[in-house]
Amino acid sequence: MEHYLSQKQGLVSKALGKYLPSASVFPPLIHRAMRYSVLNGGKRLRAVLALMAGELLGAPNSKVMPYACAMEMVHAYSLIHDDLPAMDNDDFRRGKPTSHKVFGEGMAILAGDALLTYAFQLIADKIQDKSIVAKLVGELSKAAGSVGMVGGQVLDILSAGLPVNRSTGRQLREIHLRKTGAMIIASCRGGAIIAGASGRQLAAITSYARNFGLAFQIVDDILDVNGSKKQLGKTPGKDAKLNKLTYPALKGLKASQEEAEYLIKQANKSLALFGKKADKLKELSDYLLTRNT
Amino acid sequence: MEHYLSQKQGLVSKALGKYLPSASVFPPLIHRAMRYSVLNGGKRLRAVLALMAGELLGAPNSKVMPYACAMEMVHAYSLIHDDLPAMDNDDFRRGKPTSHKVFGEGMAILAGDALLTYAFQLIADKIQDKSIVAKLVGELSKAAGSVGMVGGQVLDILSAGLPVNRSTGRQLREIHLRKTGAMIIASCRGGAIIAGASGRQLAAITSYARNFGLAFQIVDDILDVNGSKKQLGKTPGKDAKLNKLTYPALKGLKASQEEAEYLIKQANKSLALFGKKADKLKELSDYLLTRNT
Repeated sequence: MEHYLSQKQGLVSKALGKYLPSASVFPPLIHRAMRYSVLNGGKRLRAVLALMAGELLGAPNSKVMPYACAMEMVHAYSLIHDDLPAMDNDDFRRGKPTSHKVFGEGMAILAGDALLTYAFQLIADKIQDKSIVAKLVGELSKAAGSVGMVGGQVLDILSAGLPVNRSTGRQLREIHLRKTGAMIIASCRGGAIIAGASGRQLAAITSYARNFGLAFQIVDDILDVNGSKKQLGKTPGKDAKLNKLTYPALKGLKASQEEAEYLIKQANKSLALFGKKADKLKELSDYLLTRNT
Repeated sequence: MEHYLSQKQGLVSKALGKYLPSASVFPPLIHRAMRYSVLNGGKRLRAVLALMAGELLGAPNSKVMPYACAMEMVHAYSLIHDDLPAMDNDDFRRGKPTSHKVFGEGMAILAGDALLTYAFQLIADKIQDKSIVAKLVGELSKAAGSVGMVGGQVLDILSAGLPVNRSTGRQLREIHLRKTGAMIIASCRGGAIIAGASGRQLAAITSYARNFGLAFQIVDDILDVNGSKKQLGKTPGKDAKLNKLTYPALKGLKASQEEAEYLIKQANKSLALFGKKADKLKELSDYLLTRNT
């Protein structure tokens, strides 16, 4: 899996570098800021999921790549804005100073805005089959918007300092489903839509992505407790410091790990109808449980 | 013209209220913040231009309305972010406290993000003819993005404190063309595209919009010097206080007014090929020169 992943990550990073406006395009400062936050060696999980969902149904990577890169740009924008002083106030991301630390707050806000906007441009301009552009823009906008990722960030901010009990447990699931889950679901669905998935196939992939996304966020929370700054590339222990609702805070580390394992099993079960063709996606979710960055 | 405008503004405001997620949709706080900044009695200039460009070529308002409302949402998002403490730090907008004053900085950033995202959703979901969605998303994303409106805001920030000379005069034109011009052009072009404009028609409308947009921004700069807080609904004299590059600062009030008049003449000339049908658009640009809010 590691070899497969690093090969895909390489493809995605190359495509991102090609699609993003060059740092010499006027006005250069905003394009430098856009490239700084996207081209920083991230895991490219959302893009890779889009490519894999496409592969599952026979679409070549090249056909899915503009959509896959759009997902990474939206992810990068969300991190820039989340890291701002008015939000999580983080100075480091993936081992490098965050955008507002390098370019200033105003420019970081604008770089995020520009990346979000550019993601839609990429889909409109570079997806060959124009007849599915409306569908893909619909997937991305719902996943990224006020009932999706932005909504999750709103809930996350509001959850700081809430007491830890069963009701906040439900709320935490809501936060995760929106904040991380929605974009992971849209990544998988977009790749499948480009590949011409049937309704039944799309439902199966959506179920995989939903369970995968929740497991991913739980593992992320665990790493925030257990990881080192070097492994994470960002400051660990931030969640606790910000008094944030997390799985480990709510259920403890062991129960959180078990929950993640259960969700991965559910994710993999969803793919039954694809038979052996789904092995790579199953391998990926199993691999998720062992990640330490 | 005033009656025509207020009728169109009413149609647009009603449609915006209908399209925006209701304030009870979960999470309610973000939807309240989105509605607060959009439904505040703005001039709806961008939406009206889209409707009028559509009318010029025979498209009913209903067909253009989702796109027209998308332009207003992007405009509202840009004002929320421009008003933030990290940018222009404005406490009032259209006579009401700005978003970050009411909802806090973090929530204001997210409300802007959500409105930008929702604009694309509206186009993807509500434009009936799916075959032109890619084109419309392309128009909006280029106009709003790093080489358009966001790029203009970047240049605007960088221009603060620059010396006033011929070179900064060129730069000011660049700022205006991007910061306001690009979205005004995209409003007119989008309406025309929905109405099925030919290449020649689209070029004429683009030329009208380009000149109109520049004139509009010059008048805006003049009002910032001449207007009262009550007329403007925002704090006047902000540009001078922020040491911003403006037409009046560069050329004086009289020459600025003359420049705006010249541009409006050019705008109206561009519409020659439409004959009498273009009278309303010409009336609108003449009306612009008399505005005091």
